[in-house]
Amino acid sequence: MDYDERGNLRFGGCDVSKLASTYGTPLHVLDEQVIRKKCREYMDAFSRSYSGPGYRVAYAGKALCIKAVLEIVKSEGLYLDVCSAGELVTALSAGFPPDKIYFHGNNKSTDEILMALKRGIGRFVVDNWFELLELGRLSSKLKKRANVLIRVAPGVSAHTHEYIDTGQSDSKFGFSLIEGDAMAAVKRALQMRSLHVAGLHCHIGSQVFNLESFQRAAWKMETLRWEVKQETGVELLELDMGGGLGVKYLEGDDPPPIVSYVEAVAHAVEEAASYYGLRYPVLTLEPGRSLVAEAGITVYRVGAIKNHRVGESYVLVDGGMFENPRHALYGAQYTVLPVRKPITHQRRVFTVAGKCCESGDVITKGCELPPVSAGDLLAVTCTGAYHYAMASNYNRFPRPAVVMASGGKSAVVVERESYMDLVKRDKVPVWLEAKKLAKAMGQRPGM
Amino acid sequence: MDYDERGNLRFGGCDVSKLASTYGTPLHVLDEQVIRKKCREYMDAFSRSYSGPGYRVAYAGKALCIKAVLEIVKSEGLYLDVCSAGELVTALSAGFPPDKIYFHGNNKSTDEILMALKRGIGRFVVDNWFELLELGRLSSKLKKRANVLIRVAPGVSAHTHEYIDTGQSDSKFGFSLIEGDAMAAVKRALQMRSLHVAGLHCHIGSQVFNLESFQRAAWKMETLRWEVKQETGVELLELDMGGGLGVKYLEGDDPPPIVSYVEAVAHAVEEAASYYGLRYPVLTLEPGRSLVAEAGITVYRVGAIKNHRVGESYVLVDGGMFENPRHALYGAQYTVLPVRKPITHQRRVFTVAGKCCESGDVITKGCELPPVSAGDLLAVTCTGAYHYAMASNYNRFPRPAVVMASGGKSAVVVERESYMDLVKRDKVPVWLEAKKLAKAMGQRPGM
Repeated sequence: MDYDERGNLRFGGCDVSKLASTYGTPLHVLDEQVIRKKCREYMDAFSRSYSGPGYRVAYAGKALCIKAVLEIVKSEGLYLDVCSAGELVTALSAGFPPDKIYFHGNNKSTDEILMALKRGIGRFVVDNWFELLELGRLSSKLKKRANVLIRVAPGVSAHTHEYIDTGQSDSKFGFSLIEGDAMAAVKRALQMRSLHVAGLHCHIGSQVFNLESFQRAAWKMETLRWEVKQETGVELLELDMGGGLGVKYLEGDDPPPIVSYVEAVAHAVEEAASYYGLRYPVLTLEPGRSLVAEAGITVYRVGAIKNHRVGESYVLVDGGMFENPRHALYGAQYTVLPVRKPITHQRRVFTVAGKCCESGDVITKGCELPPVSAGDLLAVTCTGAYHYAMASNYNRFPRPAVVMASGGKSAVVVERESYMDLVKRDKVPVWLEAKKLAKAMGQRPGM
Repeated sequence: MDYDERGNLRFGGCDVSKLASTYGTPLHVLDEQVIRKKCREYMDAFSRSYSGPGYRVAYAGKALCIKAVLEIVKSEGLYLDVCSAGELVTALSAGFPPDKIYFHGNNKSTDEILMALKRGIGRFVVDNWFELLELGRLSSKLKKRANVLIRVAPGVSAHTHEYIDTGQSDSKFGFSLIEGDAMAAVKRALQMRSLHVAGLHCHIGSQVFNLESFQRAAWKMETLRWEVKQETGVELLELDMGGGLGVKYLEGDDPPPIVSYVEAVAHAVEEAASYYGLRYPVLTLEPGRSLVAEAGITVYRVGAIKNHRVGESYVLVDGGMFENPRHALYGAQYTVLPVRKPITHQRRVFTVAGKCCESGDVITKGCELPPVSAGDLLAVTCTGAYHYAMASNYNRFPRPAVVMASGGKSAVVVERESYMDLVKRDKVPVWLEAKKLAKAMGQRPGM
């Protein structure tokens, strides 16, 4: 992303100010080619660095589960990880092959399990005892053999925000390794005739910068694979190491490159497998954020500006926590670029905030900006993951459109909500209508 | 809310387990009579304690802006505060009289101002210079006189969560009192012929327990009203003290009763007005949370349960941060009741968490529960405000239904989203379709 010779910011080969005038603001823009590039970085890194019998890159759909993105990752040969029936329905409606779908979730309902079984989902990532027994019961009843990975909480801290640090022993996710539940779950699953235990899964957290955490987790998982072989005689042939590679939100952020991450995990797995005399497993990684975050920007139009002589000053934009709750949730910070190249080197520190009626409605704080005025456009970078996916109608703001840009072309991939969309599921009970009628006829409405 | 003689939890005169089986879970339930009772507490307290020329209770729609709730507050004679065009459209579609609507927002767009002007909105609560000038320009152009309140940041801390502490001098809301902007804005507005400056507004924050903060703010606002009279000769005749009264989420919470809050504000305003020799103003309060929070519960069905020998144990329910992000956002805590009365006095401490794929997806922590199993129903209390209003489709979960219960009757007031609702605004660009076609025909898709 850079300015052209006329000083206009370009993204996905398109003039960002033209995208804003064509599609309106606030606007999420995705660059197709960045998503493809990231997919290929994963696939190439795997093919060069892993000598096991196979590898899979499964896109963690929760980052941004919309049909257009799923079309892209599908065409790049990726697998898909879904974590709800809603994501599964989206995937199926995008024509994603069911056998390339992994079904995640820490509290799958009976209905969700049934839907996934009926559609022939590739892998159930089994999270807990309730799910294991329910899946056994339902697959047996439907006479549909389910392929499962047992999700393990490996007891490795990912050194990230506590909300997205998911690998600790007392996490809400997976069977605890330390407490022996993981081994017990594998043994139980192996006894269930309607299940095929394909392998093991773990996920240590999100926005992780520390490759050593992944390597430690890989060793723990291979140790478990060896213990399972020792205790049951069964060598599990798949290992899914989850996702979690961090991305660069700010200039100072320094996440490892995709290739280093894949190499680190692949080598740790090979090393550990060799150490234990195990066959190399089919190795899966589940990137979400690192595939799509940098492929997205959000474009805002500036409204009011508040210069306070003491304390924070504000640039107020036409979005807010309804379409980007990440500052409010995680204290996330962003890089903000003016869509017109600044003509001075003058900078001032602002809080970029939105339209929602609460002080927590901030996009980013401590942001150095050139002089801006009402009507100017700003681009917030790195908003492809966990942005549109988390958008709400808080304060009854309609959710923005999402546009795909690609080598100069652009098209809407999620339509902007209308005001009418906001009220169309609202109903007024008949008894309230009746009261209104009584009142209109001059009677005191009964209580 | 209590258990009946058969041990079933009742709410709004209805058997909660029957509501769950009729409408499904997760389910938001509102009790019409509680909303009416709270409205009347405000109106009665005002009529008894305030001797000024008039008073208004304006429901802060942001707490829960759905048509059925607006019907109720309208029929109770309340005014309404909206903070976006989306809320305005909802209000108009519920038949709310435009002249009883106050239009809030710290960054109103030109389109929003135009819509509100054309519909003859009662009061513009003018937040900043950009809005003041834009409103002046547009009202003059449309030849529609606009009634305005000038929003003041009074520099009073509300001693609440920083996200909802909105009255400080460097807040993103209002004209700063201390920096002299508030006086300057009043003077400027008085010069604009298309505006009628009806009065002043402030709002110090939300979930406030400390009545003294409101009283201090009232004195500051009356001081400003006196200063305006001194400097311009104009006595502003309306004072809107905003909202912010807290509610009881946990047993230990002890918010002041509505009547004490209204009395405290009314008396402070009367005292200050008398002190300055001003006429008592028409006094407005804008309650949101304290009108609807306690009128709502959320009903969940338990799925998996995770007992960890060390650390936190979990009861996992079929909702989560997608329909209640308040723990993730504010660290909010709740009271959780089993829908069947417990038969033992045994209790264990659990984290109640949801279905979303992140560790931050918690409803409440440290919750003492009797023995629970998969399939049991739990009710989380005090979820009428800022719950459905903040719901998203994170992880592509459909938003729950909202049901109104009233003296044993019940009806859907917001329909549950379907899986198809989640994908219906998704589009796939033609060039991606073309690539898919090319691939299906055996050609390598072009890049």
